[in-house]
Amino acid sequence: MTDEIVVIEGDGIGREVVPAAVEVLDALDPDFEFVRGDAGDATRDATGEALPDETYDLVADADATLFGAAGETAADVILPLREAVDSFVNVRPAKALPGVDALRPETDVVFLRENTEGVYAGHEDRLSEDLSTLTRVVTSSASRELAEYACDFVEDGRGPAGDPEEGFTVAHKANVMRETDGRFRDEVAAVADERGVDADEELMDAFATKLPLDPGQYGVIVCPNLAGDVLSDLAAGLVGGLGLLPSANIGHDNALFEPVHGTAPDIAGEGVANPTAAVLSAAMLLEYLGHVEAGQRVRDGVEGVLSDGPRTGDLGGSATTDEVTAAIVDRL
Amino acid sequence: MTDEIVVIEGDGIGREVVPAAVEVLDALDPDFEFVRGDAGDATRDATGEALPDETYDLVADADATLFGAAGETAADVILPLREAVDSFVNVRPAKALPGVDALRPETDVVFLRENTEGVYAGHEDRLSEDLSTLTRVVTSSASRELAEYACDFVEDGRGPAGDPEEGFTVAHKANVMRETDGRFRDEVAAVADERGVDADEELMDAFATKLPLDPGQYGVIVCPNLAGDVLSDLAAGLVGGLGLLPSANIGHDNALFEPVHGTAPDIAGEGVANPTAAVLSAAMLLEYLGHVEAGQRVRDGVEGVLSDGPRTGDLGGSATTDEVTAAIVDRL
Ligand SMILES: CC(C)[C@H](C(=O)O)[C@@H](O)C(=O)O
Ligand SMILES: CC(C)[C@H](C(=O)O)[C@@H](O)C(=O)O
Repeated sequence: MTDEIVVIEGDGIGREVVPAAVEVLDALDPDFEFVRGDAGDATRDATGEALPDETYDLVADADATLFGAAGETAADVILPLREAVDSFVNVRPAKALPGVDALRPETDVVFLRENTEGVYAGHEDRLSEDLSTLTRVVTSSASRELAEYACDFVEDGRGPAGDPEEGFTVAHKANVMRETDGRFRDEVAAVADERGVDADEELMDAFATKLPLDPGQYGVIVCPNLAGDVLSDLAAGLVGGLGLLPSANIGHDNALFEPVHGTAPDIAGEGVANPTAAVLSAAMLLEYLGHVEAGQRVRDGVEGVLSDGPRTGDLGGSATTDEVTAAIVDRL
Repeated sequence: MTDEIVVIEGDGIGREVVPAAVEVLDALDPDFEFVRGDAGDATRDATGEALPDETYDLVADADATLFGAAGETAADVILPLREAVDSFVNVRPAKALPGVDALRPETDVVFLRENTEGVYAGHEDRLSEDLSTLTRVVTSSASRELAEYACDFVEDGRGPAGDPEEGFTVAHKANVMRETDGRFRDEVAAVADERGVDADEELMDAFATKLPLDPGQYGVIVCPNLAGDVLSDLAAGLVGGLGLLPSANIGHDNALFEPVHGTAPDIAGEGVANPTAAVLSAAMLLEYLGHVEAGQRVRDGVEGVLSDGPRTGDLGGSATTDEVTAAIVDRL
C-alpha cells in the first residue's frame, strides 16, 4: 500500500527546504503519495488560522508528515501537530557532520524528549493582578511509555554507539521538582531495570555544564519535555548550530518529521537555504516507514555532499538549495 | 560597626575552600566578626536536620553568609538559606579566567537569576496513582524587583562590558509558557523601558544554541529561576567548569555567597581542592558590604595566582589548597 505523506512547507525557508526533501524522496524507490497541507504565519494571514482544521485532520489521518518551519505562529502550529500524530517522543539527534565547523566535533548524541506533558501540558492561570501559575504535569504512564521507547531504541542499536550495553542517561531536576521529576526519574529507571537496560542519571543543570566539557561521555539522553527542548538545542550549538539537525515526533501509528531550524527570515526567498536538516528529516521518515536502506542512502548522500560537494552560504559556500539538492540526488 | 559574617563550610571540599576564603578575608582590613554555622549531610547525620533552626536563624540575623557546599542534602540546605537571606536574585558571573583552559575563552557573562519562584516555589501534588503536578509561580512583583536590580546593575557599570548602554538580555520560554513567562518577560521589559535600559529577549532554547556558538554577543542575562540555573551552568561549561565560579544570593538587607561547585567527594579531605570559587565568592561578599577596593584586590590576587602562581590538580598543577591560598594572600 502506498503511504500517504502530508507535506507542510510552512513559512520562510520551509518553502525551499521541504521541496528539496520531497525531491530526494521522489528520487527513491518508495512510492509515496504526497498531499499538501498549509500552516504557519502566511496561512494565518490568509485564513485567520495558523493551523486550519483541514491540515490538522490531514496530518492525523496520514501515515507520516514532513513539516518545514513556521514563523511567529510556530508554537500554534507545531504543538497541535505533535498532538495530531499522537506523538509521545521527540527524537533529536545531534551529531557533528563532515566538513562542518563544530565546537565539539566528537558530539554524537540522541535526545529522546517526552513530547506530551511537563510545562507543555499548558494549564496556565492568571490568578490575580500580580500572580500567574502554570501546572506542570508528569504521569507515570507517559514516563513509562517514553522509557519503553528508549529501551527499544537502545536495544535495537539505534543509539550513537550502536551498542545496547551503553544504555541511556536520564536528565532531570528531581532534586527540586521532587514529586514530578522524581516520578519521571523513578518510572524511567524502573522500566530500564525491568528491561535490563543500563540507565544512569544526571541533574539537568550538571548535564548542561558537562555536555560542552565532554560530550563524548553521552549517547542517548532521556528527558522531560522542556529539558529536552533546551538540552538538545545546547547540543546543536556544539555541532555547529540548528541548521543541519533533523527531528522526529513519533506517535503510535503516525509521525511528523521536521528540521530543528526555524524560518530564517534573513535568507528566505533567495533559494540559498541549506536543505540538509530537511533532507535528514526525510531520512528519518524513510526509516520510520521501514525503508531503512533508503534512509541510509539519503544519509550517505548528504554526508558525501557535505564532505566534497557544493555548499550553501551557511557553510561558507555559494551553492543554491537546488544545486545542493541535485548533488544529493546524484549520489543516491 | 563590625559586620557579622556567618561561615558555613558544609560538606566535602566546602571544609577546605571556605577556610581558605576566610583566611583571605582575614588578611584584609575589613574587620569582620565570623560566626560558625552548621549545615549539610554531616549535620543531618549528627543532628537529624540538614539545616538546623539555629543555623537558619544565624544566617537570617547576620550581615552576610559565606557558604561552602552540601552533598545530597544540597537542596534542603541551599533553598531555605536563600530564603533566610530573603534573596530575590542569584548573581552568577561566568568568565574565563587567565591560565584556565576554556572552550570559549571570550565568554564573559553575568546571569541574574530570579531566586524565589518559578518551579522552585515548590507546590507539588500527587493527584493520583498516575499523576503528579507542580505549580509554577510567576508574579509581577518578583519579576519587577529582579528587573529593577538588573537596571541598577547595568547602570552602575557592573555588567561585563562595564557600559550601561549594553543593557541586558531576557531569556525565557514565553512562546510555550505564555501566561507565566509572558508575564515575566513583559514586566521585565516594562521596567527596562521605564528605566531607559536596553533589553532584548531570547527564547531560552535558542539561547542554549547561541551561547556556545557565540558567547561574545551576550553580557547580562536576566532569567526565571530554573532557566537561570541551567543556562548559567551551561556558561560554566564554556569557561572550563563549575570549579572556579562564585555566586551571590542577594536579599534586601542580607546576602549569601557560595561557590557554584559541589562537594567534590572524589578529592574531599585531601587538601587539594581549588579555593578559587570560594575566594571569588568572598570577593563578591566584600563588594556587597561596600569594600569594593578590597574585593578588587582579592580578584587581582586570584587572577595573578592563576596566571603564574601555584596551581591545584584540576588546573594541571600539584599545589595544595593551602599553598594556593597563601599565594593569593601574598599578593593582596
Ligand atoms: C516552537 C516551540 C513551541 C518548539 C518547542 O518548544 O518544542 C521548538 O522550540 C522545538 O523545540 O521544536
Ligand atoms: C542544589 C540545587 C537546589 C541548586 C539549584 O537548583 O538552585 C543548585 O543547582 C544551584 O544552582 O545552586
